[in-house]
Amino acid sequence: MTFAQPGDLVQLVGKDQNYFLVTLTPGGVLETHRGILKFDDLIGREMGSEVLTHLSHPFYLLSPSTDDLIRDLRRNSQILYPKDLGFILLKMAIGLGQTVLEAGTGSGSLTLTLAQAVGPTGRVISYDQREDMQKLARKNLERVGLADRVTLKLRDIAEGFDEAEADAFFLDVPNPWDYVGQVRRALRGGGFFGCLVPTTNQISNLLVALSREAFAFPEVCEIIQRHYKPVADRLRPEDRLTAHTGFLIFARPIIR
Amino acid sequence: MTFAQPGDLVQLVGKDQNYFLVTLTPGGVLETHRGILKFDDLIGREMGSEVLTHLSHPFYLLSPSTDDLIRDLRRNSQILYPKDLGFILLKMAIGLGQTVLEAGTGSGSLTLTLAQAVGPTGRVISYDQREDMQKLARKNLERVGLADRVTLKLRDIAEGFDEAEADAFFLDVPNPWDYVGQVRRALRGGGFFGCLVPTTNQISNLLVALSREAFAFPEVCEIIQRHYKPVADRLRPEDRLTAHTGFLIFARPIIR
Amino acid sequence: MTFAQPGDLVQLVGKDQNYFLVTLTPGGVLETHRGILKFDDLIGREMGSEVLTHLSHPFYLLSPSTDDLIRDLRRNSQILYPKDLGFILLKMAIGLGQTVLEAGTGSGSLTLTLAQAVGPTGRVISYDQREDMQKLARKNLERVGLADRVTLKLRDIAEGFDEAEADAFFLDVPNPWDYVGQVRRALRGGGFFGCLVPTTNQISNLLVALSREAFAFPEVCEIIQRHYKPVADRLRPEDRLTAHTGFLIFARPIIR
Amino acid sequence: MTFAQPGDLVQLVGKDQNYFLVTLTPGGVLETHRGILKFDDLIGREMGSEVLTHLSHPFYLLSPSTDDLIRDLRRNSQILYPKDLGFILLKMAIGLGQTVLEAGTGSGSLTLTLAQAVGPTGRVISYDQREDMQKLARKNLERVGLADRVTLKLRDIAEGFDEAEADAFFLDVPNPWDYVGQVRRALRGGGFFGCLVPTTNQISNLLVALSREAFAFPEVCEIIQRHYKPVADRLRPEDRLTAHTGFLIFARPIIR
Repeated sequence: MTFAQPGDLVQLVGKDQNYFLVTLTPGGVLETHRGILKFDDLIGREMGSEVLTHLSHPFYLLSPSTDDLIRDLRRNSQILYPKDLGFILLKMAIGLGQTVLEAGTGSGSLTLTLAQAVGPTGRVISYDQREDMQKLARKNLERVGLADRVTLKLRDIAEGFDEAEADAFFLDVPNPWDYVGQVRRALRGGGFFGCLVPTTNQISNLLVALSREAFAFPEVCEIIQRHYKPVADRLRPEDRLTAHTGFLIFARPIIR
Repeated sequence: MTFAQPGDLVQLVGKDQNYFLVTLTPGGVLETHRGILKFDDLIGREMGSEVLTHLSHPFYLLSPSTDDLIRDLRRNSQILYPKDLGFILLKMAIGLGQTVLEAGTGSGSLTLTLAQAVGPTGRVISYDQREDMQKLARKNLERVGLADRVTLKLRDIAEGFDEAEADAFFLDVPNPWDYVGQVRRALRGGGFFGCLVPTTNQISNLLVALSREAFAFPEVCEIIQRHYKPVADRLRPEDRLTAHTGFLIFARPIIR
Repeated sequence: MTFAQPGDLVQLVGKDQNYFLVTLTPGGVLETHRGILKFDDLIGREMGSEVLTHLSHPFYLLSPSTDDLIRDLRRNSQILYPKDLGFILLKMAIGLGQTVLEAGTGSGSLTLTLAQAVGPTGRVISYDQREDMQKLARKNLERVGLADRVTLKLRDIAEGFDEAEADAFFLDVPNPWDYVGQVRRALRGGGFFGCLVPTTNQISNLLVALSREAFAFPEVCEIIQRHYKPVADRLRPEDRLTAHTGFLIFARPIIR
Repeated sequence: MTFAQPGDLVQLVGKDQNYFLVTLTPGGVLETHRGILKFDDLIGREMGSEVLTHLSHPFYLLSPSTDDLIRDLRRNSQILYPKDLGFILLKMAIGLGQTVLEAGTGSGSLTLTLAQAVGPTGRVISYDQREDMQKLARKNLERVGLADRVTLKLRDIAEGFDEAEADAFFLDVPNPWDYVGQVRRALRGGGFFGCLVPTTNQISNLLVALSREAFAFPEVCEIIQRHYKPVADRLRPEDRLTAHTGFLIFARPIIR
């Protein structure tokens, strides 16, 4: 059995599926609209247990999924969503011990996901030119205990990158085509390149730049997630859908 | 720079994007419709390089992505695809050092992905009642060097599972609702449950069984991947689409 | 050239694409948030012209499409949308001079579309058991000048229909499977049957009833409309989408 | 009851849903892979009846829907599909008695649909510069009895159109932006413009041309039809989907 430990990042989920992410610091409390939960009462409880607020409202004590972590990120920018993030991991072969680059940092949703995937022996280096963004991303990473795997660099990426043999590079900026040369020089031959853009014009511009800068095998796709109401006898798609987050473009740096 | 080493699993990609996955055993050769490549000529070459067959046809020497590995699996069953696999990893918080269960094994596409994600300190235990399936899955896992992280068990899962505190369980069988009790007993409180089914009737049946067996917070979704032709000045969605692989259902085992 | 005539139903569209549907009764006025338009000033103007409110805000004087009429319907129920309505017309071969049945009437979006398609020599008979619904539908039909082609009947359809040789029948009720026998008796052999339901359970129930009641060749589909922001240099899908209105089921009444 | 008449265009549908469209000329026969049907045996039968070939294989005698007519068109080009055609009718307010223009004619799927919708008092004028296309379209129209409502004009549309006050114009050519001026001059103020293009670059080019040539209120969308296997207890989306036919663009000609 798994019991909640001091310092654990846990998720407290109400009947309505709304949840709170909290770190179980001894002596701490969570104040909800349904009453208060004392962390000292939670520490030592089996994970999965129902716990009650002082007003007797029930919550479940769970560990969060990466999906839960990302949906709860503090953000001041559009974020990458788990439907895209999971596919990026597999498409770019992100794995233990790798060196992975990213620009921009944004609110850190991809940064977090990459940091999990490269493990304690890997390294994520994330560039952004906005200090406020990187502050926020750092907070988001610290909260989930992944900040020590990530190096944040404040930089106009037109100046290029310090790294030269990265395993993978994900580019999430409005004008990616302007930086394809810099990205190419930061990647090892045979590494992995990925990018997200919201418009079709950006895809076209990027495809031109990629073929110019020794990237081969471009692929363009879109991942659409459709949610269903989980009711056995009235099963149906949700009425509303986030229809578009962005198009994904992948390519491989080759040696010409 | 990264150079091809003896024993590396590499991908040789032709101009038409068709590729071959091979392990670079010294003395080996790859015979393609475009000519022969000798592995001794490839070993020591920088990854990303163009290499020529004896008929001077070019291939690129690359490391495969997980997407490439899965698309190349030997299969005798429907497989899970990267669009679903990546999301499953994030939604079920699959991570280093975990114990993850799966039934059935099938051709091993999820098995492979889970084995990568739990790392060398984790464990994947995969049940199936068909010996031919497990033989095939074992071959697929050996080829990518992940067989030692996986325990394959030949079993009618109606008899239950040997494990009791798994972090996550993915169920991919035609009648998942018949095994929800057994799965619940194999999972730790607060763990992660996932399932894939192709029909809406199966979703309904499973939702009923989940609520009966102390699973909470069910979610049902579908991940659709739309590919675009990567041509800058004639950008358009591909004409044909794999419109349906299956519906994903997730839930959390709770303690009542 | 086409000029606005007294009594015309016209559309006045603002720069923001919001629009007003009005009937140009002499002496009438339209009061908008951007100022007043006098109908006497509009009558005689060429269609497509820019017209100015007394505050000099511009509107365009246009004739409405069926899509515009339907989006502007007064409604107290879920309506059928043009993406579905247009396909229904072609799939059910709705044409001039036909007798077409419908239940329930709802707010009248399908009623209106059918009434247009059967023309002045055709007939739409629409059943509903809610008087308020039919009052609203009647108002909606009168406004667009189609009320005289439609007979509204207030009835619990479990009692059956007065008609026996209808060309087509569209059923839009929560439990369509309960009325398949009645519908069959109202339709001529070889006619057309259509239905809309929001849940997958309803589809399954209906398919069972259809095969029992001498309907052949069932088809089930869903029509999804994806809108794009019409900006030439930043072309992209809209962020949000009406992801689900309902599933369409079609079948043919045969003689056994 | 409706009985098959000499000269009727009917549909003979086999158990496998494959169908034949035939005109019931007295003395004629249909030879199928399942045996022969004599038209004299069909004339006078009630529509919806089962009829048997000389090998006792059953077919159903039905009238075809517009969807059936279009799927059976002889074609030597990409055609517009019912999912798009139906929406076009409503979005462009195609109705009885109108004058509607089209270029190019293609195989005539839109021509047929427009000819049905304008009725015997309306007129469809369709331009194409390929004689073979128009011959084929004419045959397709004659077969369904609609040729007399359609004028086919063989012309390079860069030269402009003979008409000046059309109610609606649908443009289906590879470079629609080159003809927007000509189209504008053929349309009445406040009429309806529609276009189909397969690539995003074409959308962008067209949007620029539309705003230059006094078209307002552009809309861009895509209609996706998802089919389900109609099996009550194993309901699921079809595996394969026609994922892309084209993007639809609509706009309104205004007077500036």
